Amino acid sequence: MASTRKSTRKPKRTKQTYCWGALKTEGNATHKELLGGKGANLAEMTNIGLPVPPGFTIPTSMCAAYYDEGGKFPTGLDKSIVKAIKQVEKETGKTFGSQSNPLLVSVRSGAAVSMPGMMDTVLNLGLTDEAVLGLIELTGNERFGWDAYRRLINMFGDVVMGMDHESFEHEFSIVKKKHGVKLDTELSAEGLKEVCQRYKRAYRKHVGEDFPQDPTKQLTLAVEAVFKSWNTSRAKSYRQINDITGLQGTAVNVQAMVFGNMGRDSGTGVAFTRNPSTGVDKFFGEFLIDAQGEDVVAGIRTPKPVSQMTRWNKRIFNELLKIKKILEKHYRDMQDIEFTIERGKLWMLQTRTGKRTAAAAVKMAVDMVRSRLIARDEALLRIPAGDLVQLLLPSFTTKSKKDVKMLTKGLPASPGASTGTLAFSAEDAVARSESGENVLLVRKETSPEDIDGMHHAVGILTSTGGMTSHAAVVARGWGKCCVAGASALHINAARKTVTIEGKTYGEKDVLSIDGGTGEVMLGKVERHEPKLSGDFETIMKWADQKRRMKVRTNADSPADAARARGFGAEGIGLTRTEHMFFEGDRILAMRQMILAETKELREEALARLMPYQRDDFVGIFTAMKGCPVTVRLLDPPLHEFLPHDAAGQKDVAKAMGIKVATVKRRVQQLHEFNPMLGHRGCRLAVTYPEILVMQVTAIVQAMIKCKKKRIDAKPEIMIPLVGIQEELKTLRQLTADTIKAVVKKEGYKGKLNIPIGTMIEIPRAAIVSDQIAEYADFFSFGTNDLTQLTYGFSRDDINSFLPHYIDDAILERDPFQTIDVDGVGALVKRGVEGGRQTKKGLKIGICGEHGGDPKSVEFCNTVGLDYVSCSPFRVPTARLAAAQAELR
Amino acid sequence: MASTRKSTRKPKRTKQTYCWGALKTEGNATHKELLGGKGANLAEMTNIGLPVPPGFTIPTSMCAAYYDEGGKFPTGLDKSIVKAIKQVEKETGKTFGSQSNPLLVSVRSGAAVSMPGMMDTVLNLGLTDEAVLGLIELTGNERFGWDAYRRLINMFGDVVMGMDHESFEHEFSIVKKKHGVKLDTELSAEGLKEVCQRYKRAYRKHVGEDFPQDPTKQLTLAVEAVFKSWNTSRAKSYRQINDITGLQGTAVNVQAMVFGNMGRDSGTGVAFTRNPSTGVDKFFGEFLIDAQGEDVVAGIRTPKPVSQMTRWNKRIFNELLKIKKILEKHYRDMQDIEFTIERGKLWMLQTRTGKRTAAAAVKMAVDMVRSRLIARDEALLRIPAGDLVQLLLPSFTTKSKKDVKMLTKGLPASPGASTGTLAFSAEDAVARSESGENVLLVRKETSPEDIDGMHHAVGILTSTGGMTSHAAVVARGWGKCCVAGASALHINAARKTVTIEGKTYGEKDVLSIDGGTGEVMLGKVERHEPKLSGDFETIMKWADQKRRMKVRTNADSPADAARARGFGAEGIGLTRTEHMFFEGDRILAMRQMILAETKELREEALARLMPYQRDDFVGIFTAMKGCPVTVRLLDPPLHEFLPHDAAGQKDVAKAMGIKVATVKRRVQQLHEFNPMLGHRGCRLAVTYPEILVMQVTAIVQAMIKCKKKRIDAKPEIMIPLVGIQEELKTLRQLTADTIKAVVKKEGYKGKLNIPIGTMIEIPRAAIVSDQIAEYADFFSFGTNDLTQLTYGFSRDDINSFLPHYIDDAILERDPFQTIDVDGVGALVKRGVEGGRQTKKGLKIGICGEHGGDPKSVEFCNTVGLDYVSCSPFRVPTARLAAAQAELR
Repeated sequence: MASTRKSTRKPKRTKQTYCWGALKTEGNATHKELLGGKGANLAEMTNIGLPVPPGFTIPTSMCAAYYDEGGKFPTGLDKSIVKAIKQVEKETGKTFGSQSNPLLVSVRSGAAVSMPGMMDTVLNLGLTDEAVLGLIELTGNERFGWDAYRRLINMFGDVVMGMDHESFEHEFSIVKKKHGVKLDTELSAEGLKEVCQRYKRAYRKHVGEDFPQDPTKQLTLAVEAVFKSWNTSRAKSYRQINDITGLQGTAVNVQAMVFGNMGRDSGTGVAFTRNPSTGVDKFFGEFLIDAQGEDVVAGIRTPKPVSQMTRWNKRIFNELLKIKKILEKHYRDMQDIEFTIERGKLWMLQTRTGKRTAAAAVKMAVDMVRSRLIARDEALLRIPAGDLVQLLLPSFTTKSKKDVKMLTKGLPASPGASTGTLAFSAEDAVARSESGENVLLVRKETSPEDIDGMHHAVGILTSTGGMTSHAAVVARGWGKCCVAGASALHINAARKTVTIEGKTYGEKDVLSIDGGTGEVMLGKVERHEPKLSGDFETIMKWADQKRRMKVRTNADSPADAARARGFGAEGIGLTRTEHMFFEGDRILAMRQMILAETKELREEALARLMPYQRDDFVGIFTAMKGCPVTVRLLDPPLHEFLPHDAAGQKDVAKAMGIKVATVKRRVQQLHEFNPMLGHRGCRLAVTYPEILVMQVTAIVQAMIKCKKKRIDAKPEIMIPLVGIQEELKTLRQLTADTIKAVVKKEGYKGKLNIPIGTMIEIPRAAIVSDQIAEYADFFSFGTNDLTQLTYGFSRDDINSFLPHYIDDAILERDPFQTIDVDGVGALVKRGVEGGRQTKKGLKIGICGEHGGDPKSVEFCNTVGLDYVSCSPFRVPTARLAAAQAELR
Repeated sequence: MASTRKSTRKPKRTKQTYCWGALKTEGNATHKELLGGKGANLAEMTNIGLPVPPGFTIPTSMCAAYYDEGGKFPTGLDKSIVKAIKQVEKETGKTFGSQSNPLLVSVRSGAAVSMPGMMDTVLNLGLTDEAVLGLIELTGNERFGWDAYRRLINMFGDVVMGMDHESFEHEFSIVKKKHGVKLDTELSAEGLKEVCQRYKRAYRKHVGEDFPQDPTKQLTLAVEAVFKSWNTSRAKSYRQINDITGLQGTAVNVQAMVFGNMGRDSGTGVAFTRNPSTGVDKFFGEFLIDAQGEDVVAGIRTPKPVSQMTRWNKRIFNELLKIKKILEKHYRDMQDIEFTIERGKLWMLQTRTGKRTAAAAVKMAVDMVRSRLIARDEALLRIPAGDLVQLLLPSFTTKSKKDVKMLTKGLPASPGASTGTLAFSAEDAVARSESGENVLLVRKETSPEDIDGMHHAVGILTSTGGMTSHAAVVARGWGKCCVAGASALHINAARKTVTIEGKTYGEKDVLSIDGGTGEVMLGKVERHEPKLSGDFETIMKWADQKRRMKVRTNADSPADAARARGFGAEGIGLTRTEHMFFEGDRILAMRQMILAETKELREEALARLMPYQRDDFVGIFTAMKGCPVTVRLLDPPLHEFLPHDAAGQKDVAKAMGIKVATVKRRVQQLHEFNPMLGHRGCRLAVTYPEILVMQVTAIVQAMIKCKKKRIDAKPEIMIPLVGIQEELKTLRQLTADTIKAVVKKEGYKGKLNIPIGTMIEIPRAAIVSDQIAEYADFFSFGTNDLTQLTYGFSRDDINSFLPHYIDDAILERDPFQTIDVDGVGALVKRGVEGGRQTKKGLKIGICGEHGGDPKSVEFCNTVGLDYVSCSPFRVPTARLAAAQAELR
């Protein structure tokens, strides 16, 4: 009985390793959460009979346990690893640390979601002073043996022990000099052996102890290093930027080594089963002969396209094509694979769903539907809606390219067209872009340390590395323009210059890069709007058939309105009127209005502003004819229109013929401690009703003008910042009275239907939405301000703590980008419910920036909004996201 | 059938007049909403057999109808008035407009709630060129007839037609001069007749038509004037200040005139059935012989106390005493009456529940319970909780009075003790008080135009008028100190001086007035804390027995804590720690902390601040021993502690031995656009955890110090501005860790129980309160900030629109004074529900200023808060309000 009791108490033991191999495989592709994408797919490939070197995965739960215990190895994991290694020894017939037939392994991280930010890989693990002799004996290749050993010491020191890569490079160059050679590959076995000695000395010097001669100790340390790499700032930064949340940690994959660098009959490569940039269904990738995998990814040597592989080994190429078919059929998607050929035998090292540009995603989705690989709904769900923005990005015009000097050409690593001054370090890119400059980040190659700089730059230009280099992969993920491997570039990062064909360019020079062609040009190149593919139209059509919500745009000018219409906008959800007052003479009249001491003087200035407003509205109504245009009345506090510096105040005083002191006094009077919470929005219209009257007059006159030209203008008047029923009641009455008065004065005989609604952007408005709905023909959620007030965050001021909040995971993500469902979302929900309780079927939309964010669009669909409104370039994103929301 | 259909369609006709009199009375005291307080009580008094001149009331519904129709007389009202006048003719045997026995009437406003702001009364209405002859014939008194007529023209012109009072005064003085007399009363019948002629001319000149000779037209115009007076800005202002909402309008009372000015056997008076200032059960009032009622109220002649009436007419005095008894027994409350004696016959003109000081309210309530007139619960409900603050007001010490010069003595019109510089107009009082000055408003007499100035002044001093003058009544209503009728004062408002016994004082001179004694003193007089009466303690004891909620106080110093404890506070609900950093050396250490560039330097400065904080806490814990003390951690943004002017920055730089540029840069770095929404509250502790660690260390060390001295310190730590669960989770952990560390370091062996909770002041916190409650031992609603964010109102900036909002009734009242139940209240409710959903029985309080506002306290009780916390002087108010909330 005692023992029974004991056994029921004992917690179910978590499995600590999952092996794969010809003899035994424990995982499969469905175990991604636990085994990481890489581990799950290695098991899966083994399961479906592909040639995969055996190994095992330490699951993500172990990483979580490691952190839960404050950075200690979970109990029993040591023993489990030893046991798993035994299984790999059985699969391979080799022995870990053996002097005759040593088993070497690689150690790689692998989370459930692919993360290029975590590159901590160690190869050749298991080599020791003794085992290296065994490897030499086994391969009969002394040079190979010592090369493998020095690589291990280098990688282990660098990745596991955090040593500076430079210390090893330094030793290597001493030996090369001593032996009188220039290239690494020219160094003899003897030289490489010497390198190993020097590396071990460097290791001891920096680490404080000898390079471990116990292979199990090497392995344990490497596994821990992978665990640790999960929470490095670069990994966290990548997860943040890519909005990856909810993972418990990384898995660790330990796999028997195969060598692509065992001579000319060996090689290594990475490939996509279709073109990840265009989506064309053609095997696409690169390989290197006599090289290890990391050589391709790191972009140190420039690899050859796989299409050229037939010249080297046609059998292998055909075998790869066969595997491509098996994989695509099995995974029903394009795959990104890594492979190695060891002495003529092909080994698969990785498969995963391949990253792709938006254009490729669209094409593949349509192609796969046509070839009946997937259904339409799946096709729609598979395209990341947010990425569609890429397709709308401008590109350079062919004509304007002729006018500039072509400097060189690199690889078209990520499409787009960017122009900027040059930044030669990530830090500079961040600093200068934050001060408003458009910069191109120019680097020999990029590494995870550069992530932040890459994010800030308008484009990325590298001199080495291929289509799958770090720079290319990351840039494509973001839809950022990138030209990689432009080998004509000679970059001197210290001096902050780049020399191309003898001419040197510095920080202030302007270059343009074309990520679709790889061209690098001097100066600014004119860009044109993108042409959308037929596949894009197809996807949009499918999306439109599925979605329930309408998609409108936020546009303040006829040009923006027209562009958005081209992208499929079904109306304008937000026209801000304040921008209209800044141009030319208008700002003077506006300032005159604000500085006026009496209602009469204010009305005089407003009368001068009215025709400008009216003509603006005519333009927008015309561009949007037939579609609704929601005009928001004046919103910002008046002081935003006044000059705050002495010189500006002097100018205004002079132009208006009043005293500088008067201007100053008024500016002081209007000063606010918290303008966000001050005299703005409908509060302006309550205190200065004449402003509302002018704006409404302009809208109605514009509508009548359009109607007379048979243009179907459909304005809707939106009153901002309402928090109290009486505000809307009063202003609605004034608006309706003004409409009536203008119609009468204009002698217009037809009927004008102008809905009058309000923004719901004050928490109170959402709470008492049932009251407010009594006087509203529609609601539009202004989630920017609603988020500010619900959190008590000023967008202008959060930089002092928000980054800290994200770093410390106090906030999962910036609530201004994706709607905060628990807080702000609850208010939106209450707003909708209250509004429709009073008026069943009340039209409700959203016009905050969340309207173009896919996750937020999904939320909007869930709570039953009628439409979302977003910036023009986000319209296709919103259309697709709205469809996906319905499908989910 | 047709007729049946017709009659069902016809709307129920609203009754347009309600008469009272010996023959027929249609209303009673329960009809206050409809007939107004005055009208309902006139009917009631008639019903219970008191002598009331007959008349009729036009109900409040007619006023509402008048406004509904855009300022037009409701259909049929004309005819109803004529019919009602006929009834009064029947009751009196007189005829309206008759040349032989004319019926004269008074026209008075009368809303459901007494409003001294509306004084539009017209007497003697019905007199015409013909009727005046009838009056003379009837009374045999020519002088009386013409005097009555000139009074009518004057009042009618002034009150009904909006003429300037001055135009009449001017004419009167011409005639007086011509006849060589000084006083009005010295003028002969002939002179008064001439005055009438001149008044009529002046009337024609200003109004543009003749003074109406049709008495019905007079009446119609007067009724309309009463309707109009409902919405004058002074009436609206009074309703606003006194928080009177929800009324539909004023009623109009038309009543047969009786004359107190028919000779030495006539008179008029106003009285309270008990002393309204002290509550003593003694008939209290004033009367004038041979005068009309308005003479007493307007304060033009100084009346005699009613106690002296026995010398004049003992029969009448006894009759009044009898009526007092009847009224108090009938109304079960102290009454405020108006009466007139016409040729020896007593007439009651008004009775209403009398206004009283808080002290009187308390005494009367206790007395009436003791005499079994009312029950305890009713006694508690009858005292306006907000008025209790008056009782706690300081008064001058007898000793310090000896040190100053006594200038003169007036009437002790409203208790309290005030010291201030002198303002001679309402405008000056407003302007100077708003710029921070304490001013006494010094006026000959006050009128409704002065309301705003009276509200702003710290005290009111008048040279004419009695205890029931406008100044006295209004001041008592507010609990503001007032000395009235100080006849030694010679005020020159134009020159802004007052001369007392030959010495002249100007705007900059400081006087002190004692509203309890009527003394006027030169210079500042030392004040002492009020002594609370036994009756007050009785009421508080009764309240404490009834209330469910606890009452705490907001106090930042031992002195405040001790005072609040004396007022019955059961703990501290909010100790702000930021004030503690401003004194002496501390501000330098604080600034050093803020200016520090590294965590180490910051910790160094914090270490210097810690002992100050600890000693402050020892003081507060000691003052509050045995009671909980909620300490709020640092809340305001750091820039509030830095000097913003060049000189201040230079000083800091010098004191700290750093560059001015460094100080400047840091000030700039810390600048925020919307500090209310910026880097403050718990956001500081998240980014600078060392600040929290210092504060918590100080709290724990202070607690241990107290414990060692056997002082029962009960701190609670409150983390401000939480909006996200993770904020509280992180900071709670840090707080708990710090407590543990300090206890260990101090080697303290006992157990310290320190609850850790949070303020709910961000809308999001209220919304996700279920999540936040997981890490909170208690909630405290910070309704100041919650109101700011829920409305999107910055308290610092609302003056540009809030007064407008109140004037236009967009807001019924300032939401920072009384909680907005629909909006902010809904969040509080949700906060409570969510919090207790997670933790049943979670302790929840409020520490915003609403905690001392009776209506808000009632709301807090309704939603189930455990305690309210308010400023020390508000504690008794909160105790009583909490009891009243339970009783309602």
